[in-house]
Amino acid sequence: MGIQSAENSGNLQGMGRSMIIIGEKINGAIPRTAEAIEQRDEGYLVELVKRQEACGADYLDVCAGTAPEIEYETLCWMIDVIQDVAVKPLCIDSPDPTILERIFPRLKQPGIINSISAEGNKCEVLLPILRDNPDWQVIALCSDNHGVAAACGEKSAIAFELIEKALNYHMAPERIHLDPLVLALSAVNDSAVQFCHAIHEIKERYPAVKVTAALSNISYGMPVRSLVNRNFLTLAIASGLDSVIADPLNRDVTGNIYATEVLLGRDRHCRKYNAAYRKKLIGGLK
Amino acid sequence: MGIQSAENSGNLQGMGRSMIIIGEKINGAIPRTAEAIEQRDEGYLVELVKRQEACGADYLDVCAGTAPEIEYETLCWMIDVIQDVAVKPLCIDSPDPTILERIFPRLKQPGIINSISAEGNKCEVLLPILRDNPDWQVIALCSDNHGVAAACGEKSAIAFELIEKALNYHMAPERIHLDPLVLALSAVNDSAVQFCHAIHEIKERYPAVKVTAALSNISYGMPVRSLVNRNFLTLAIASGLDSVIADPLNRDVTGNIYATEVLLGRDRHCRKYNAAYRKKLIGGLK
Repeated sequence: MGIQSAENSGNLQGMGRSMIIIGEKINGAIPRTAEAIEQRDEGYLVELVKRQEACGADYLDVCAGTAPEIEYETLCWMIDVIQDVAVKPLCIDSPDPTILERIFPRLKQPGIINSISAEGNKCEVLLPILRDNPDWQVIALCSDNHGVAAACGEKSAIAFELIEKALNYHMAPERIHLDPLVLALSAVNDSAVQFCHAIHEIKERYPAVKVTAALSNISYGMPVRSLVNRNFLTLAIASGLDSVIADPLNRDVTGNIYATEVLLGRDRHCRKYNAAYRKKLIGGLK
Repeated sequence: MGIQSAENSGNLQGMGRSMIIIGEKINGAIPRTAEAIEQRDEGYLVELVKRQEACGADYLDVCAGTAPEIEYETLCWMIDVIQDVAVKPLCIDSPDPTILERIFPRLKQPGIINSISAEGNKCEVLLPILRDNPDWQVIALCSDNHGVAAACGEKSAIAFELIEKALNYHMAPERIHLDPLVLALSAVNDSAVQFCHAIHEIKERYPAVKVTAALSNISYGMPVRSLVNRNFLTLAIASGLDSVIADPLNRDVTGNIYATEVLLGRDRHCRKYNAAYRKKLIGGLK
C-alpha cells in the first residue's frame, strides 16, 4: 500500500483533517431510525443532524430505507426536516436513480449523489444532472449487472468505466468518489487487500479521483466488529482513502482518522491532531 | 507500504498470530517496577511474568534500568526470580554489552539479546556469543556513534551493515530483529513514514530478516499516546513488522494485531481472530 506521504493538498475539511466524513446515521436501515421515520418523529431526525454535525461530519447521508412505493414521499419529509436545521450539505442515498432524480430539486445546497454504478441505467439517469450541476459530487460504486466485483482488477475495470462515463459528462474527477466496495472479510479473506490494491490502481490512473468506503461492511459476520472496522480504516487511509461513510459519533473512527493522518506525515507539527484533542474530538470523555 | 498479502509462513506464535510479542513490563525504567526491583519484591516480578504470559507474550524483556554500577547484581536477582516461574524465554536488555556478556550464562533457555547496534563495541562483544549459541536471537538497533538515523536511507544503511556483520558470524537472518528506531512524531513529523519505508528497504534486500519496534516511542510528547501507538502498530504490521516490544496486557495492542493480521489476508477463514475472541484475548471484558 504505497503511502501518500506528502501533506495532502486540497481536501482540508472542517476540524482540520483531510478525510471527508459522510455521516451515516440517518438511514432507515437502522431499526431505531426506521421507527422514527415511520412515526414521522422530527425531533429524532433533528437530533441526528445536530449530533453528527457537532462531531464533525462534512456531509450527512440521508437514506429512507423503506419499501420502494413509499420511498419518495418519505425522502421528501426527511429532507425537509433535515434541511430546516442542517448546516452541512447532504448526501442523498437511494438504490433507485429515478428517486434521486425526482428528489434532486428539493435540495438547497450542493451535496453528493449516492450513487451511480455500472448497474442498469443509473449513469444515464444521473450523469446529466451532475453535468448540469457542477457543484455536486457523486459516489460511484464498483458494481455492475453481475454484482460486486471481488478481485482488485475487476473493481478497477468498473471504476475506469464509470470514471470515463463521468468524464464524458464533463465531470471534474475531484467530484467523483469511487467506492471499490469492500466485501466481508469472513466471506472473502483477502477482501481488504483487494480493496487497498484497487485504490492504488485507480489513483495511479486517475490521481485526482477520490476513493471512498462504507466502513462497516468489512466486518460483517465477525466478532468485535468495531475492532476490524477501525483497523480497516487505518489501512485504507494509508492506501489513499479520501472519504468515508461512517458514524461520526464513534470516537474510535475520528480518533483513528486523526492519528493515521499524523502518522502518515500529513499533519505538520501535529497541529491538527493537537487541535482535535483540545476540541475533545479525540481522547477519553472522562 | 507494500503489503505482504500472502499468508505469513513460519512465525506462528502461541495464540495463533504471526506477530511476535516481547512483553515490555519488566523494566526498571517503569517507576513502579523500579521500586519493586529496589525493594527486591519477588512477588511483584512474579506477577508481571504470569500476567504477561497469560496475555500471550512470546518473550519477556528483562531490563534492570539501574545505575551501571549495580546493574549486574540487579539483573542476577531479577533473572533468578523470573526464571523460577517463567515458561517463556527471556529477552535480556541492557545498553551495556559487557553486562549482557556476563549475565548470559545465567539464562536457562535460548532467548533474545537486546541489543547490538553500530555503536561502540556491541557487535564485537555480542556477536561471538550469538555465533556460539545458534538458538539465540538478537535485536539490532539502527543507530551508530552519531546516534539514531532519522532518514529511511540512513536507517537502512546501518541495518545492512549490522546484518552483514551478523552474517559474518554465521547468524541465520531469521534470528535477527532489526529495529529501525522510530523517532517521536512530535519531533520528526514523517517519522512513521521513514520507519515504514525502512522496513521495505530492509526486507527487499534481506527478506528473511525480521523487523521489530518498541511501540511507544512514536507518540512521545503527544496527547492520547495510546491512540497514536496502536495506529502506528497497524501501519507497521502492514509494512512487514515481525515483532514488537509492547505491553501484552494492553488489549488495544493485541486487538490491533489480530485485526490487522486478518485484514491483511493472513488468517484463513478468520480462524485465528475468532479463536482469539473465544479465548477473550480481544473484545470487551464485561
